[in-house]
Amino acid sequence: MKTPKRIVVLGSTGSIGTQTLEVASNLGRSFDVVGLSAYLSSEMERLCEQVREFKPRAVAVRDEKQARLIRGQTGLKRVWSGEEGLVRLAGMEPCDIVVNGISGAAGLAPTLAAIKAGKRLALANKESLVVAGQVVMPLVKKHKAELIPVDSEHSAIFQCLKGEPAKSIKRLILTASGGPFRKVGLRRLKHITPAHALRHPTWNMGRKITIDSATLMNKGLEIIEAHWLFGLEGDKIDVLIHPQSIIHSMVEFLDGAILAQASLPDMRLPIQYALTYPERLTSPLVTCDFAKLKQLTFHPPNLVKFPCLRLAYEALRTGGTMPAVLNAANEVAAHAFLDERIGFNEIPKVIARTMRKHRVVAHPGLEDILEADRWARASVLSP
Amino acid sequence: MKTPKRIVVLGSTGSIGTQTLEVASNLGRSFDVVGLSAYLSSEMERLCEQVREFKPRAVAVRDEKQARLIRGQTGLKRVWSGEEGLVRLAGMEPCDIVVNGISGAAGLAPTLAAIKAGKRLALANKESLVVAGQVVMPLVKKHKAELIPVDSEHSAIFQCLKGEPAKSIKRLILTASGGPFRKVGLRRLKHITPAHALRHPTWNMGRKITIDSATLMNKGLEIIEAHWLFGLEGDKIDVLIHPQSIIHSMVEFLDGAILAQASLPDMRLPIQYALTYPERLTSPLVTCDFAKLKQLTFHPPNLVKFPCLRLAYEALRTGGTMPAVLNAANEVAAHAFLDERIGFNEIPKVIARTMRKHRVVAHPGLEDILEADRWARASVLSP
Repeated sequence: MKTPKRIVVLGSTGSIGTQTLEVASNLGRSFDVVGLSAYLSSEMERLCEQVREFKPRAVAVRDEKQARLIRGQTGLKRVWSGEEGLVRLAGMEPCDIVVNGISGAAGLAPTLAAIKAGKRLALANKESLVVAGQVVMPLVKKHKAELIPVDSEHSAIFQCLKGEPAKSIKRLILTASGGPFRKVGLRRLKHITPAHALRHPTWNMGRKITIDSATLMNKGLEIIEAHWLFGLEGDKIDVLIHPQSIIHSMVEFLDGAILAQASLPDMRLPIQYALTYPERLTSPLVTCDFAKLKQLTFHPPNLVKFPCLRLAYEALRTGGTMPAVLNAANEVAAHAFLDERIGFNEIPKVIARTMRKHRVVAHPGLEDILEADRWARASVLSP
Repeated sequence: MKTPKRIVVLGSTGSIGTQTLEVASNLGRSFDVVGLSAYLSSEMERLCEQVREFKPRAVAVRDEKQARLIRGQTGLKRVWSGEEGLVRLAGMEPCDIVVNGISGAAGLAPTLAAIKAGKRLALANKESLVVAGQVVMPLVKKHKAELIPVDSEHSAIFQCLKGEPAKSIKRLILTASGGPFRKVGLRRLKHITPAHALRHPTWNMGRKITIDSATLMNKGLEIIEAHWLFGLEGDKIDVLIHPQSIIHSMVEFLDGAILAQASLPDMRLPIQYALTYPERLTSPLVTCDFAKLKQLTFHPPNLVKFPCLRLAYEALRTGGTMPAVLNAANEVAAHAFLDERIGFNEIPKVIARTMRKHRVVAHPGLEDILEADRWARASVLSP
């Protein structure tokens, strides 16, 4: 028998985290969960259950209070806390694969730690690349780490590119469900409430990413992520609305051939692929029967109704610290909408205003990026 | 500059042949046409034009009369005739790639010659594999030849499998336009004339293959071809009707992921891929814009209306000489329909009758296969 692959799951109680643990269970003895992390106090009970079930060697939580709770409840000794603890978990030995399912810019520090430790990083935290792609990508090369996307779209592209050299790519086509408001008229958008937005038609996801999906900022962030992962400029990364979410993205090659990856919408597939790559192993997922689907539809995105997409292209074109500002402003705006402090249509407006005010650092280091992130968070809701 | 790849085009005046020459012209100096062949007397003028344009080193034609004509018209000395001449052309030196665009079982002898000479064989002649897959495939291995499919469907699967091990495949999904009679009721099918059948909705093809497309026998032969190319049994090769012919075929993997290859329907794409593989080079083909296509539809094939598909599965399951009999009976029946000697609905009937009468050789050599082919041709229209 082969040595099992050892997995650390960051954000283990979130949507990606719980699905990763399910996939690891399904894969059986060839995968071993050695680390878990969670941050929300409301999730500590669930984290305790995960510790009892998966018996990790170490756990990271937000603070010492949470750490004491977990130690007391589970008897586990290695319970680390704070960003320091999370970074330690991401770089721990022995560990082969770090799954980063943390939401938002908080995922950046453990991304860097996993890469510096030369791990395979299964990255669901798109903010790591959106915010700091220019810092992250050279480190992947330097430390001979492996970066495998866990987004359904980027996993689709990653799968389509297997065996194909980068120079053969003509363009990437990111598909988008169009979000819950695809058919809602421009004028009615402003009346949308968080409850409406959280009813996503096809994907089961976390709260913040569901708002991003409704504004199409999720797709905007994915454009920037795709730029860093696959090395193409924004004008070669198209977005295509495909409400059924069956084709998860496509690659068009120089010769005119398009490769597409498809499945029923289920994050467990890209998660499993990131764990088993370059192999494919059986999974209990339901087969996608095209004859039963009957039809797949496609249309171009409406940039007037969904200005977040336009803002993302603009941030990518501007470069430097601008994508970090786009992301930070969006995080604050999305949460402000969830807390009913701003309306749905104000999300792109406050982001655009923040971007206009930002003084871009063209070739930023990590500190410039973090400073731009802090500046944007402080500025976005100030008048 | 790299040495140009030298190409022999068999069936150079046919649909695949002319498109291969067009692709070779577009690719410029990196490809050099060194051999051409044509058989029909009506095509000799066109062959002369091709000889003048491409200046091949050698040409093969049907008989000495044609050979004298070509020599006289073009001044080319190496004009060979008969099956012997064709086989000589397929194995000629110097030559890197043989494109076999010959229609029907006549393509088998040059297929074997190209493989025995260790060439890359770009195979559009599906009968080579349908009839004699069990002889052809071991020779590919033995002579370290390369077999690259030129069918749009098998090229699609070949492209989807690049970088993926065969053991990862769960099933192949061959798409089919459904032919011109997809929407014609079962009872009206018998009134169909050759003129109706030759109006194919999406692909520009030769006459015989257009009839095969109308009966779905084309798809049946492709199932058998896929079996030999990719090593899967018939129960793992599905057919899916997809009238737009945009997705050319798909592969479902063990983990539930599906890879699909798509483009506007244009044989120049799989032809070019077979020439340039493993590279992809730019081509003047029009990009496939999914947003403009709006929708793609899919439904299961109707095996009652199109019994040829059922017959092909049956022939593959039976194995031995049965696929050769299926193919030979179909060739005779399709031509009899084109000559208005039998009706459209009689095509599957005469094939089924021939299959029932055939005494299968379970592990045939080439001679058994050729004998089964001759027997079937002689039997199919006899009462």
